[in-house]
Amino acid sequence: MSAKAKALYTFQSENKEEISIQENEELVIFDENSVDGWFQGENSRGEKGLFPASYVEVIRTRSNSNVTNCSISPAGSLGNDSSFLSSSTPNTSLTLQSNIYDNDEDDDDDWDDWDDRSTVVDDGDHRSPGANGHPHHSPLSNNPNVHYRAKPHMERQDSISGSRKGSVVGRNLNRFSSFVRSGVEAFVLGDVPMMAKIAESYTIEMGQLGPVWQASPKPFSCSVEDPTKQTKFKGIKTYISYRVTPSHIGRAVYRRYKHFDWLYNRLLHKFTVISVPHLPEKQATGRFEEDFIEKRKRRLILWMNHMTSHPVLSQYEGLEHFLMCTDDKQWKLGKRRQEKDEMVGAHFMLTLQIPNEHQDLQDVEERIDTFKAFAKKMDDSVLQLTHVASELVRKHLGGFRKEFQRLGNSFQSISHAFTLDPPNSSENLNKAISHTGRTYENIGELFAEQPKNDLFLMLDKLSLYQGLLANFPDIIHLQKGAFAKVKESQRMSDEGKMDQGEADGIRKRCRTVGFALQAEMSHFHQQREVDFKQMMQAYLTEQIAFYQRVVQQLERTLHMYDGL
Amino acid sequence: MSAKAKALYTFQSENKEEISIQENEELVIFDENSVDGWFQGENSRGEKGLFPASYVEVIRTRSNSNVTNCSISPAGSLGNDSSFLSSSTPNTSLTLQSNIYDNDEDDDDDWDDWDDRSTVVDDGDHRSPGANGHPHHSPLSNNPNVHYRAKPHMERQDSISGSRKGSVVGRNLNRFSSFVRSGVEAFVLGDVPMMAKIAESYTIEMGQLGPVWQASPKPFSCSVEDPTKQTKFKGIKTYISYRVTPSHIGRAVYRRYKHFDWLYNRLLHKFTVISVPHLPEKQATGRFEEDFIEKRKRRLILWMNHMTSHPVLSQYEGLEHFLMCTDDKQWKLGKRRQEKDEMVGAHFMLTLQIPNEHQDLQDVEERIDTFKAFAKKMDDSVLQLTHVASELVRKHLGGFRKEFQRLGNSFQSISHAFTLDPPNSSENLNKAISHTGRTYENIGELFAEQPKNDLFLMLDKLSLYQGLLANFPDIIHLQKGAFAKVKESQRMSDEGKMDQGEADGIRKRCRTVGFALQAEMSHFHQQREVDFKQMMQAYLTEQIAFYQRVVQQLERTLHMYDGL
Repeated sequence: MSAKAKALYTFQSENKEEISIQENEELVIFDENSVDGWFQGENSRGEKGLFPASYVEVIRTRSNSNVTNCSISPAGSLGNDSSFLSSSTPNTSLTLQSNIYDNDEDDDDDWDDWDDRSTVVDDGDHRSPGANGHPHHSPLSNNPNVHYRAKPHMERQDSISGSRKGSVVGRNLNRFSSFVRSGVEAFVLGDVPMMAKIAESYTIEMGQLGPVWQASPKPFSCSVEDPTKQTKFKGIKTYISYRVTPSHIGRAVYRRYKHFDWLYNRLLHKFTVISVPHLPEKQATGRFEEDFIEKRKRRLILWMNHMTSHPVLSQYEGLEHFLMCTDDKQWKLGKRRQEKDEMVGAHFMLTLQIPNEHQDLQDVEERIDTFKAFAKKMDDSVLQLTHVASELVRKHLGGFRKEFQRLGNSFQSISHAFTLDPPNSSENLNKAISHTGRTYENIGELFAEQPKNDLFLMLDKLSLYQGLLANFPDIIHLQKGAFAKVKESQRMSDEGKMDQGEADGIRKRCRTVGFALQAEMSHFHQQREVDFKQMMQAYLTEQIAFYQRVVQQLERTLHMYDGL
Repeated sequence: MSAKAKALYTFQSENKEEISIQENEELVIFDENSVDGWFQGENSRGEKGLFPASYVEVIRTRSNSNVTNCSISPAGSLGNDSSFLSSSTPNTSLTLQSNIYDNDEDDDDDWDDWDDRSTVVDDGDHRSPGANGHPHHSPLSNNPNVHYRAKPHMERQDSISGSRKGSVVGRNLNRFSSFVRSGVEAFVLGDVPMMAKIAESYTIEMGQLGPVWQASPKPFSCSVEDPTKQTKFKGIKTYISYRVTPSHIGRAVYRRYKHFDWLYNRLLHKFTVISVPHLPEKQATGRFEEDFIEKRKRRLILWMNHMTSHPVLSQYEGLEHFLMCTDDKQWKLGKRRQEKDEMVGAHFMLTLQIPNEHQDLQDVEERIDTFKAFAKKMDDSVLQLTHVASELVRKHLGGFRKEFQRLGNSFQSISHAFTLDPPNSSENLNKAISHTGRTYENIGELFAEQPKNDLFLMLDKLSLYQGLLANFPDIIHLQKGAFAKVKESQRMSDEGKMDQGEADGIRKRCRTVGFALQAEMSHFHQQREVDFKQMMQAYLTEQIAFYQRVVQQLERTLHMYDGL
């Protein structure tokens, strides 16, 4: 369905798949949803291509009520226009949002083939997943990785704002900026109208070290257990179902990976300035293999734990729906309701209640710069540890096991040789040596089994943190953008080019962004401390138990030589 | 000095460096000592080359008394005729005896540069040494190794036997056979005359499992300690001196590797049917490096232990001289006396006193065949274990250390990242994580250090056993050869072609060889049982201590997380 739009600003095409638009030019929009923050359409000169959504105002009629919510339940998908898009992707670093989950009209009955749609191959533990539209982040690459974050669609706050005042503060021309894409620019500039009634509200308090999210009034946890292979359509469709039990309800629901993925995308769509870690990766082949199922389960547990322990995310109605709904029909209705949630992206910013305490914006920026350096280093370290731990897993399964098994084998061979001259064969010694051989073969097996007890769990946690950390560059960029707007508006106000009230409004909204980001940073630190302490303790505990098992085996073996 | 000889048998040249000789042909001998069991000389047709020493009778005059003992203090050396010999070696598998130690006349004052003469490079732990004329025996080779044993010179019993009866039992035509080379053929055939007075005597008794060497009446042990760098000629010559203390004397002597080597060659020269393991290998470069010195010391200790625990070898006068002589002049005199010892090789067989018990020669042969299969398998297993243990050393020093150090490094890196956002840096947790990092770095070092405590010692013992086992094929061959002679002589006696008395003599002497070999086998088994039990216990004990150290380090580290 095409719509009309009016260009609010002049935009000069910089790539061949883009088209230039002039201020006030009339435009036709073919697709509002294929690329983040960009529309596909045609200008008045008949040129067809992409132009930034934030530079135009969509012209709608009230009678077309379906369109009003089109950004929330869009019908467009990557598949619809792939020929066009495929030509546009090679020259840009755009993160394409396929948004398969949004194909509501025709996929609600397609409850069962989620995994099958994805053909992303598991790259192994040492990579963060490239699925879900996250460009992966290889530890082997020397590229000082730029982190991209899969973002919700360009919100429509710019275009539906009937009361736009045509702010004189310049728009950000970096069309790939998360600041623009997330709608935070629009929020800071006051382009997002206050809604008459906002049901949701998230409070930021001043903690000892700075702003923090107010704790959830109803904290709970959630188990993810018992992945079970299910079949449907007389065995044609096979999938894995997990028993998910929220502690405050105590009643289990059964969810598939595709339901987790739906939830993930809803969270991503809604919660600006909050780091939502990606789900454990998809896998095209071997997804019914025991190890893969086990690994996915462990990582879904961690992911879910992170959601339930987050003061904001844990209160999300979509999460509640995911955790509680047991009825198929209700599920579909609730799913659609969440997808129509208006308080997403830029609007979510409206739900934040910030403290009255004054924070010098300069201080906030310094604070964030420090966090940025920290997050970068932590990301590097987590990547390094992931790489080392993955390699160690490989060594445990390969080199270590092999060396000990070879040693065991050689001892057995010695023992065997000793039996070949029977009158002199000293049976008990041969038995002891043979047993030593078996012991080292067992030790080889212990080495091979050990990653299941320690390194795998460490890698699971590191993978979660890779997901969390990957989001921060973009989140930090929001504050940077907001801060730039404040400075620009202040300068304009000082020069008399802007109403002081408007400049104050921008400053106030920038504070909201700053508070939110600081609360999120604070939550990250708090959670990281708990998680890494637990991770290290668990690792050391298992390592101790492992080496003790080795010692025990060797001690038992040594005793076989007693009295020979 | 050239000598004359008469061919006792016709010999057909089979290689271009050999010459054919006819029975009764007069020959000129240029060199009696350059190649084991071969003379260099000229036949009556003017052809020059090698012919088997056992096929000729050297014609000597009483006036030339120096020549009488020429096989014991020969002046000939490899260097004298290297042009001739170098052409002969490529086509044969002859083991050349350079016998440098026999260069008495001009090297007695060359007390100091022994090591320097050898340019054999250390191939590393996983090879048995190629020095001392032992072709090495690579564990990596797929060649089903033929074992060569460095043998004493062709003894002169064949040629000096004035009373030769021209035995009608055929000579062994395999000129490389240890049976021929060692003089055991000559002994069995009765070609070695009984000496008027034999001071030495070694008794073989019947033990529970068969013949055994009678225990030494004065058992002792011997320490080899404190390798110390010494200099001579104002620092121009540098060498390592070892403090050697025999337990029954309690007074130390100081010996160099070259003295050990002299002793080794004396033992090799004298003790037919006894397995004398080679010395720890020589090394051209790095021989003053700490690790090399340490390793050589450990292996000299094992070698010396083996000598002192052998009932026959431990009674050798040359060993006593080596262990007790403290005076330089006495040393030289004693050295020459040992080198002039006549009771070597075939003559040594005359010193053996065997029990009266009847042993069926068929049973003896079966017994020896069983041992042969055992020794082959044990040799293979020892080689396999040597290879595996060497590789494990490499892994300890390389892969294992690296993996743990990398892990430690990654933990440190995580800890460092955590300090970068000070208000949230949770100092104690960071300290604990950093300490965990150091712990794993230490564990890496523990892994790298561990071979010194266990694998090196195992490899030392395995190396000794490689040396012992390498000798058995040749020793077993002695009995095989003797047994063949018995059968041949019995057949000839049955056919009336041989005096029964002579056939009985051959059978009796064959029994001596069989008893001696069985006693040596028995001693080997006894020693192996002690050595391998000790080796396995020591290895396991050190392994337990090692893993316990790892556990202790990890436990201390885990406690750092308590109360965080």
